[in-house]
Amino acid sequence: MVPTVEKPLRSWLAAANEAGCDFPVQNLPYGVFSTEGTAPRCGVAIGDRILDLAACEARGLIDAKGAFAEPALNAFIAQGRAKWAEIRARLTEILAEGGDETAPTVAMAEATLHLPVKVTEFTDFYASKNHAFNVGVLFRGPENALPPQWTHMPIGYNGRASSVVVTGTPIRRPMGQVKGETGPVWSPCRRLDLELELGAIVGADSQMGERVSVAEADEMIFGYVLLNDWSARDIQAWEYAPLGPFQSKALGTTIGAWIVPQAALEPFRCAGAERVNPLLPYLQEDKPGFFDLTIGWTMNGAPMGRTNYNVMYYSSAQQLAHHTESGCPMRVGDLLGSGTISGPTPDQTGALLEMTQAGKLPVTVNGESRTFIEDGDEIGLYAFAEGEGYRIGFGPCTGRITPAKA
Amino acid sequence: MVPTVEKPLRSWLAAANEAGCDFPVQNLPYGVFSTEGTAPRCGVAIGDRILDLAACEARGLIDAKGAFAEPALNAFIAQGRAKWAEIRARLTEILAEGGDETAPTVAMAEATLHLPVKVTEFTDFYASKNHAFNVGVLFRGPENALPPQWTHMPIGYNGRASSVVVTGTPIRRPMGQVKGETGPVWSPCRRLDLELELGAIVGADSQMGERVSVAEADEMIFGYVLLNDWSARDIQAWEYAPLGPFQSKALGTTIGAWIVPQAALEPFRCAGAERVNPLLPYLQEDKPGFFDLTIGWTMNGAPMGRTNYNVMYYSSAQQLAHHTESGCPMRVGDLLGSGTISGPTPDQTGALLEMTQAGKLPVTVNGESRTFIEDGDEIGLYAFAEGEGYRIGFGPCTGRITPAKA
Repeated sequence: MVPTVEKPLRSWLAAANEAGCDFPVQNLPYGVFSTEGTAPRCGVAIGDRILDLAACEARGLIDAKGAFAEPALNAFIAQGRAKWAEIRARLTEILAEGGDETAPTVAMAEATLHLPVKVTEFTDFYASKNHAFNVGVLFRGPENALPPQWTHMPIGYNGRASSVVVTGTPIRRPMGQVKGETGPVWSPCRRLDLELELGAIVGADSQMGERVSVAEADEMIFGYVLLNDWSARDIQAWEYAPLGPFQSKALGTTIGAWIVPQAALEPFRCAGAERVNPLLPYLQEDKPGFFDLTIGWTMNGAPMGRTNYNVMYYSSAQQLAHHTESGCPMRVGDLLGSGTISGPTPDQTGALLEMTQAGKLPVTVNGESRTFIEDGDEIGLYAFAEGEGYRIGFGPCTGRITPAKA
Repeated sequence: MVPTVEKPLRSWLAAANEAGCDFPVQNLPYGVFSTEGTAPRCGVAIGDRILDLAACEARGLIDAKGAFAEPALNAFIAQGRAKWAEIRARLTEILAEGGDETAPTVAMAEATLHLPVKVTEFTDFYASKNHAFNVGVLFRGPENALPPQWTHMPIGYNGRASSVVVTGTPIRRPMGQVKGETGPVWSPCRRLDLELELGAIVGADSQMGERVSVAEADEMIFGYVLLNDWSARDIQAWEYAPLGPFQSKALGTTIGAWIVPQAALEPFRCAGAERVNPLLPYLQEDKPGFFDLTIGWTMNGAPMGRTNYNVMYYSSAQQLAHHTESGCPMRVGDLLGSGTISGPTPDQTGALLEMTQAGKLPVTVNGESRTFIEDGDEIGLYAFAEGEGYRIGFGPCTGRITPAKA
């Protein structure tokens, strides 16, 4: 899987070298953290600790024009791809065996994690053919399941950036209009669901009126986070035609605290799902756009759906290129959700809607029956790439549902 | 129309008192401007001049904690409704007859106008029943024209804030996927359209997981701008189902440079369109939510559609309340588009799609035939409320189309 037979790089920080650790020296994901009495600032996860990048910069170990003292990574990211590479190389040097064992770290267990970026705008896509078909059958029947343009473009919609929250934030069950016997009813959501996704963080601006190619788009992506696009299916069913999902998706979108740099995923690049027709030239890729990533979710700790990111049909780079089709300007900090990642079988699905066939086939979770998410349930996402002797993990992306406020 | 028989207030600035002037002392709309060699800062339009609010504050005439020196109104707006009222009262005092004739102003003709706010997020609604029905017939036929939930909720979708530009900005005709005989075709948009809208500027934050009532929402609105939601109808028709319009709406959204304060429109409050069914309690209003505003558009200077904002079915306050239905947090600087404002007859429509019946009935503009917008065409929007002896105008909201970039 990893294209080298060299002995894997190790860190002087022992925990980073342990089997199954999400954060070896090959990963170096970026986040924002604080400890008691200190302000949020940027850090990098390593083993069971966080390298304090603001302190590193204050000490002259790295240079990012002070950006790491900010409570979000945007100012660093905006410095561009060459700077990303320079800092990553320098951090590898510092954290690898033989590096700087005096580098300032804090224990992950003592840190509070914050949103890693100020999310400028959030766009959610729909790029798993399995998911699009499965959900299409449930919403519109099998004959209209896959929209006719689905195999020609990455369908997406603008989401709500203000409702993006970091792992661990409680999510309140929404109230909303749902379809009743004789008209709409005001009700707590009865079909609360998750969506297992990967989010891409846009790392460069594009100009209004200009398009970016898939190759340029790939270069614009800073990294990836886990993303749970909580969905109120009953609210969605009533509201979504013709202008798309709105309040059904605005109750909250949880992302992981750690942005895994695209650079850390490069050894795992691979092709996605087979194409059923050629794409228009503006969507064609000149290299594989996916990553060999195991991705899955848990409910109250019990394993639920699990699949691989390589089941997807459109890559983040293709989604980003399509996002500029009409000249839409993109900005540093934009978040692009992959769409629910579902494999072909029920145990590989990334949403309860699919797994339970819209509630018709309950699943058993820790001995309890579930069709959709109940109050108090906690959903956790995970993803990792397996190298030889190390794992590139994303850390947790969890949220617990609190009762609706009538 | 105006609920007082007093002699209208006049300004010491003669141009502000002229018949048909958009910016009398009763209006005092906020914007951001610069002059050659100076930085963008906040101002208020009065007659044919702009009151320099940053200079006023520097001189001690007003106090907004330095917010008016910013290149956007967000910092001022965030200071809240009491501050809005205080500043408006003080500006009225300064600019009315007998006020401070030494107050620092610049000629509008010498100023460059900028986006008045940093648009945090942009949501577009669909609140004219005439427009929703007319467009629904064209996209889905008369039997499915009005979606079943339309009379129960203000349907909206998240738009793209990064593509919101100020009046006068050229708009490039987009390229995109459109439906061809045997599959999608890559093409310049052939059905480029405008949408005549009013935009509401949200002036206060709401908290995640909390809803706001219609009455609270009304208090949260700082003011209104003209808004043209440029639309690529052929791209829209191919992309929009099931997740809504995306790139067809991301080529640009033009807003006027002047935010007319809600306070200036209070004398013109009125009811909207008649309801066909009662609304759920969370959408019910305790006072009229619309304004008696003439609103219309021109093409290359020729008068086109013209109607009144009071044809609308859902007010901005109702839209804002609905936007928090699921607990979605709102932020200062959020922009809510009313949806296309169309009266019942073709000459009252706010989009060419409706006016020309999707291109079947061309219209004549300055002797030339048009179905949709051609390269070089300029679309202008206008709106005003007529008081006795004064007019509350919105200033221009124009954009000219430049050719597509293949």
